[in-house]
Amino acid sequence: ARPRVGYFYTGKSGKQLLAEKVMKLTVKQYQSIPVVVKESSSVYDAICTMFLEDVGTLFVVDESSSLVGILSRKDLLRASLGKQVLETVPVNIIMTRMPNLTICYKDDLIIDVAKKLIEKQIDALPVVKSSDGTSYEVVGRITKTNITKALVDLANDE
Amino acid sequence: ARPRVGYFYTGKSGKQLLAEKVMKLTVKQYQSIPVVVKESSSVYDAICTMFLEDVGTLFVVDESSSLVGILSRKDLLRASLGKQVLETVPVNIIMTRMPNLTICYKDDLIIDVAKKLIEKQIDALPVVKSSDGTSYEVVGRITKTNITKALVDLANDE
Repeated sequence: ARPRVGYFYTGKSGKQLLAEKVMKLTVKQYQSIPVVVKESSSVYDAICTMFLEDVGTLFVVDESSSLVGILSRKDLLRASLGKQVLETVPVNIIMTRMPNLTICYKDDLIIDVAKKLIEKQIDALPVVKSSDGTSYEVVGRITKTNITKALVDLANDE
Repeated sequence: ARPRVGYFYTGKSGKQLLAEKVMKLTVKQYQSIPVVVKESSSVYDAICTMFLEDVGTLFVVDESSSLVGILSRKDLLRASLGKQVLETVPVNIIMTRMPNLTICYKDDLIIDVAKKLIEKQIDALPVVKSSDGTSYEVVGRITKTNITKALVDLANDE
C-alpha cells in the first residue's frame, strides 16, 4: 500500500475548515476592560476620561451600575462644537440611550459582533450580563481593535 | 479499492490552510475612498468634513496634492477642548505630520496593515502611491472597519 503521509480525512474542504475556525472565536477570548462614567458626569469629565483611559467609547451607568447609555468619540466631538459649557452639560443629554443600544454577551461569537459593528456603523459594543433580564451590568468592551487582533491571531495560528 | 470520497491531498494541516487564506488578503481588495483636506484648512472645517463624510480619519495634503499629515477624531477632539478659536487654527498645527506617518500600498497584505494598526494604536492608514519615492499621493484609506469586513468575509467564504 502507498504511504498515507500527507493524507488526512475530514470530509470537509479547506474553506470549510477556515470558516469553522473563524466561527469558534468568542467575545470572552478577545474582550477588553470596559470604561464607565456615571450619567451625572459632565461632558467635559467624560472627554477627560476618554483621553486618560485612551479608549474610543465610554459606557454610561446609573447609580445601581446598570448600563443606561453609550458615548462615542464622535458624540463627544459633536458636543464640543456646540455653544454649551461642557463642564455643566451632563452626559445623559448627549449619549445614545437604552433601548437603542447594541449589546453582546461573553459567549457570543466574534463574527456576530463583527457583523453588528459594521451594520450599525459603531466602534464598540458593551459586553453585558443580566440577572433579571431588564437591567444590564457592563463586564467588558469589544471593539474593532479586538476584531483586528482576532484576524492577526488567525494568521499566526499554524 | 476503497472509494476516495472525502479524502484530499494537500500536505498541509487545516490550520495552515487557514493561515494561508488570511495571508492572501490584500489592501486593494478592502480599501475605502480617502477623504482629504488641505493643510491650510481650519480645524473647524476639518471637523465639519469629518462629520459630512462620516469618516474617523482625514488625510492632509499640500498644494501639489502630496500627503503631509493625518488627522484623527482624537486629534480634533483634543483641539476642540483648547482655548483656540477653531475657525482660525489651521490643521497643520495639530496634525500628525510626515515623516511620522504610517502608510501602506495597495498590494500590501491586510494582515500586515492589521499589525501596524494595533502596534501604532491608530484607526486608519492612507494607501499611497509614489512616483518619485519622496512624495506620496493618497489613493485609498484602510481602517479597522475594513479589517473587520475581511474577517466577516473569511467566515462567509465556504
